[in-house]
Amino acid sequence: MTRYALTLEWDGTPYMGFQRQAHGPSVQQAIEEAAETVVGHAVTLHAAGRTDTGVHALGMRAHFDSDKTLPPFRLSEALNARLRMAGQAVAVLDCVEVSEDWHARFSCINRAYEYRIANRRAPLTLEAGRAWRIARDLDAEAMHRAAQALVGKHDFTTFRSVQCQAASAVKTLDRLDVRREGDHVIIEAAARSFLHHQVRSMVGCLALVGRGEWPVDRVAEALAARDRCKLGLNAPPEGLYFVKASYPGES
Amino acid sequence: MTRYALTLEWDGTPYMGFQRQAHGPSVQQAIEEAAETVVGHAVTLHAAGRTDTGVHALGMRAHFDSDKTLPPFRLSEALNARLRMAGQAVAVLDCVEVSEDWHARFSCINRAYEYRIANRRAPLTLEAGRAWRIARDLDAEAMHRAAQALVGKHDFTTFRSVQCQAASAVKTLDRLDVRREGDHVIIEAAARSFLHHQVRSMVGCLALVGRGEWPVDRVAEALAARDRCKLGLNAPPEGLYFVKASYPGES
Repeated sequence: MTRYALTLEWDGTPYMGFQRQAHGPSVQQAIEEAAETVVGHAVTLHAAGRTDTGVHALGMRAHFDSDKTLPPFRLSEALNARLRMAGQAVAVLDCVEVSEDWHARFSCINRAYEYRIANRRAPLTLEAGRAWRIARDLDAEAMHRAAQALVGKHDFTTFRSVQCQAASAVKTLDRLDVRREGDHVIIEAAARSFLHHQVRSMVGCLALVGRGEWPVDRVAEALAARDRCKLGLNAPPEGLYFVKASYPGES
Repeated sequence: MTRYALTLEWDGTPYMGFQRQAHGPSVQQAIEEAAETVVGHAVTLHAAGRTDTGVHALGMRAHFDSDKTLPPFRLSEALNARLRMAGQAVAVLDCVEVSEDWHARFSCINRAYEYRIANRRAPLTLEAGRAWRIARDLDAEAMHRAAQALVGKHDFTTFRSVQCQAASAVKTLDRLDVRREGDHVIIEAAARSFLHHQVRSMVGCLALVGRGEWPVDRVAEALAARDRCKLGLNAPPEGLYFVKASYPGES
């Protein structure tokens, strides 16, 4: 038995998220079906994180086991050829053999997301489905200041989907940086793990601060309330990118 | 009569280029139809440059005349609303009133293009239709050196489409810079004007240099030959972006 670890990129637009769904296309299904035609048996793909409908990935990590031994480079080329033939918006950026105690989800020690806001009046063309357009001028510095109240170990109940299945709402947020790049506002978030909708919920409230609808302190108050009803806004999925999953021993 | 100057962005994928075509959708038709519903009469849109099928624009300039006087901001909002309703991948980034001697095409003194190469093995997902993927490692420094032979005033017959209608193949190329940005190779070209397919033809030959199939000097030889048959390769349209048109008196 060989365990193959994949680095994946996808355009989230056509998918109902990573996880296999009975009622629509998923990234997991796309890759499992491609892999099955390559290795000749059913496989189960495990990823570092689930993602919502419309959320993109630049560097998701995932693994599956196979009885078949193939050079990892040939496997990634074969997977990409099949994904392409099937018209899937998923690509394998890298493939390596890993030991059987390496697990894409359970071994992961850090997850990094990026959220892209296009801060402009005009509708999006090339970036349609790839950013959240906000017409009103955003104060990115105020957003960054407000974000710092969320960094550290907190009960993130306010910033958690009602469907979230995590046992505890207490998480440690390592980083939440907001910066302006021309007419874009970029938010970077990193933590060992996140609650369901946590990044989008945090971004939604920061956007209210950026638009001047919330004072900077209101984000800290919303956190302290530990009440989902205190959430101002959940940002739409199309601006969110899963950027990187980190593992012990990697630089 | 009022002359309105527009700054336009578009995703070239669904269009047969800027210019109106009998047999398919064009950017010109999209905007003229939107404008006609706003001002209530037929208009003719003039742009700084034509573009081919699949070529994108980040900052094309164009103008049209109207009997109707509208605040430019309201006009751009109305145009964007109509373009969006019509499902067009075109946006008006800016709209200003200009004097009647300002002409988007004839007053333009400089045009800048960017060409994006995604230098990676994996098929493109988020960038599909927005870059030229080249799997083999490109030597961007060699490409930049080769490009410098094209800068200046030359007869660009080799780098000109057989369908080009310009009276002369002599053009002055102000800038042709190649740089690597991670797994992308970016080529920037600027000139008062370009011949049909000139940027794509130059990029095609530079890619041959980057892949090691052409020595650096071969680009200068192809130029000196003044022979379209000496062209190595015409780069595909999806990597090309019209970035900027410049006019006298603008910073």
